[in-house]
Amino acid sequence: MKIIIDAMGGDNAPAAQIEGAVRAVNELGVDIIFVGKEETVRGELKKYDYPEEKVSVVNADEVITNHEEPAKAVRSKKNSSIVVAAGMLRNGEADALLACGNTGAILASGLLVVGRIKGILRPALATTLPTAKGPKLLIDAGANTNCKAENLVQFGIMGSIYMKNVFDIDNPTVGLISNGEEEGKGDELTKAAYPMMKEAAFNFIGNIEGRDVMEGTADVMVCDGFVGNVILKTVEGMGYVMGNLVKDMFMKNLATKLGGLLALKGVKQLKQTMDYRSYGGAPLLGTKKPVIKGHGSSDAKAVYNAVVQAKKFVETNVINEIVKNVNGGESNG
Amino acid sequence: MKIIIDAMGGDNAPAAQIEGAVRAVNELGVDIIFVGKEETVRGELKKYDYPEEKVSVVNADEVITNHEEPAKAVRSKKNSSIVVAAGMLRNGEADALLACGNTGAILASGLLVVGRIKGILRPALATTLPTAKGPKLLIDAGANTNCKAENLVQFGIMGSIYMKNVFDIDNPTVGLISNGEEEGKGDELTKAAYPMMKEAAFNFIGNIEGRDVMEGTADVMVCDGFVGNVILKTVEGMGYVMGNLVKDMFMKNLATKLGGLLALKGVKQLKQTMDYRSYGGAPLLGTKKPVIKGHGSSDAKAVYNAVVQAKKFVETNVINEIVKNVNGGESNG
Repeated sequence: MKIIIDAMGGDNAPAAQIEGAVRAVNELGVDIIFVGKEETVRGELKKYDYPEEKVSVVNADEVITNHEEPAKAVRSKKNSSIVVAAGMLRNGEADALLACGNTGAILASGLLVVGRIKGILRPALATTLPTAKGPKLLIDAGANTNCKAENLVQFGIMGSIYMKNVFDIDNPTVGLISNGEEEGKGDELTKAAYPMMKEAAFNFIGNIEGRDVMEGTADVMVCDGFVGNVILKTVEGMGYVMGNLVKDMFMKNLATKLGGLLALKGVKQLKQTMDYRSYGGAPLLGTKKPVIKGHGSSDAKAVYNAVVQAKKFVETNVINEIVKNVNGGESNG
Repeated sequence: MKIIIDAMGGDNAPAAQIEGAVRAVNELGVDIIFVGKEETVRGELKKYDYPEEKVSVVNADEVITNHEEPAKAVRSKKNSSIVVAAGMLRNGEADALLACGNTGAILASGLLVVGRIKGILRPALATTLPTAKGPKLLIDAGANTNCKAENLVQFGIMGSIYMKNVFDIDNPTVGLISNGEEEGKGDELTKAAYPMMKEAAFNFIGNIEGRDVMEGTADVMVCDGFVGNVILKTVEGMGYVMGNLVKDMFMKNLATKLGGLLALKGVKQLKQTMDYRSYGGAPLLGTKKPVIKGHGSSDAKAVYNAVVQAKKFVETNVINEIVKNVNGGESNG
């Protein structure tokens, strides 16, 4: 299996990308193609031991930064690492693409370069959240700001397939995020989507509310990309704030500091439970080939886990199953 | 000052309502009118000492439960505690109303019985969230599922006045919740509201994101009631889940348990920081008289703090200032 990595995208690129991916080469046996500034990438690669035939580097001189307008940058910077990488994926030179850079540019590359699966109206970004009942999927986590009811139904189909295949969940539950549990609750979009989701070929459990998000009430939580972005960032921001409060809690005085030392094992487990790095990246679902967006601040561990996830994404034939469920059996040509 | 309390609404009603309000009578010198089943209320009141002339009870035989369709129940149950209480407020028999029952019924009573301020298109529910930078206001936290840009602008005006008067914040900052900081980001609603908010008579700081919610980036966070409901419940749910994780953290083994005991002072402060009960209730802004919705699970402490807040709401003339800023000086007739 060959996985392309945008070596230049992300706050810690290319060091974290290369360290994490080389670990994946050594431990998982995958082949990696790094796309980016060749000299820089090869310089980093020198730090590690790995089977050389399993790693290649493709030069791309340009980089799309976080400050550029994504769609415009993807159209104009043909030699940027993300656009070159997406082109190689489209041409069948690899099985999946992992990128941690400008989110908009990754989405635009997926949409414009890799292309949509026939029948999928809007590919969506799906993020796993660490909930009280284990990792659950939030879809759309930010790709589509304005959605139609049909889009939400397809998000449910794709999310359900992803959780079944990649997270081994039998008959995943799908909830529609709304402002109340009852069928009549919701805004115009969710009210229109509800009856369509009831008829859809997945395990629909009805409306879920904000409090269900971190409770993990549904395996797949469906919403439009505006709401999904707000939820995801609210959860991330609150995790950060609460982490600091827990730290402050132990720093009050000598007794609390000693308490913190004694509770260290518990603290570590709490941290691990809430650590986004353990859960891999966010798959863009609905493109013809697997594209995974890693967190912008990914370190080597997060990159490694995103490769683990990309490998499973490919092995479990998520895309073929989406094609079958949307097109009624047409091939993914 | 006279404050009406719906004695029957809330998970712990009427015991918590009466205990908290009697404390307010004794400590703050306010007059309280309890509306509810007279016999039950008087039975509870017997437990406490207070100046009898400052407490009265008005009988209302019916109760609107959480399971009833709010607008319909408000129209049909004319003798329910919330409808009777709202009618008394409208008629000038008291200065403010506090209720902890069925949210929809409280909103409907505010809208249909107490009435809108002239010029206010939609009253909104405003909730204070405990953020890293102290209490901040989320408006609309759930009253209006589908909004227009004009509504969001008015939410900014009302929220700004509330934070200035009740929380003593000079020139409160107002942020528009969106899926990105840049002016061009947002869904159709927020994109339409942005330029109008730039021109509005408050301290607009532009778009804010989910991560800003618990960071406390803006004093007033504006969104439609669908998004606000999802944010509020996501934060409440995550607080609950993280609270359990912190508890689990200390219960791992003898060492962590001892650690928890030593860190008790810190744990208590963490709990207090995150305790919704310290921040009072959620004002419904835009009605002709002050209506405050207390948390459904309010205990006596929460009720007491909501009365503190109701008193300040009245004393600082929030409503007159809203009237002036929306009508350009017309009286609140």
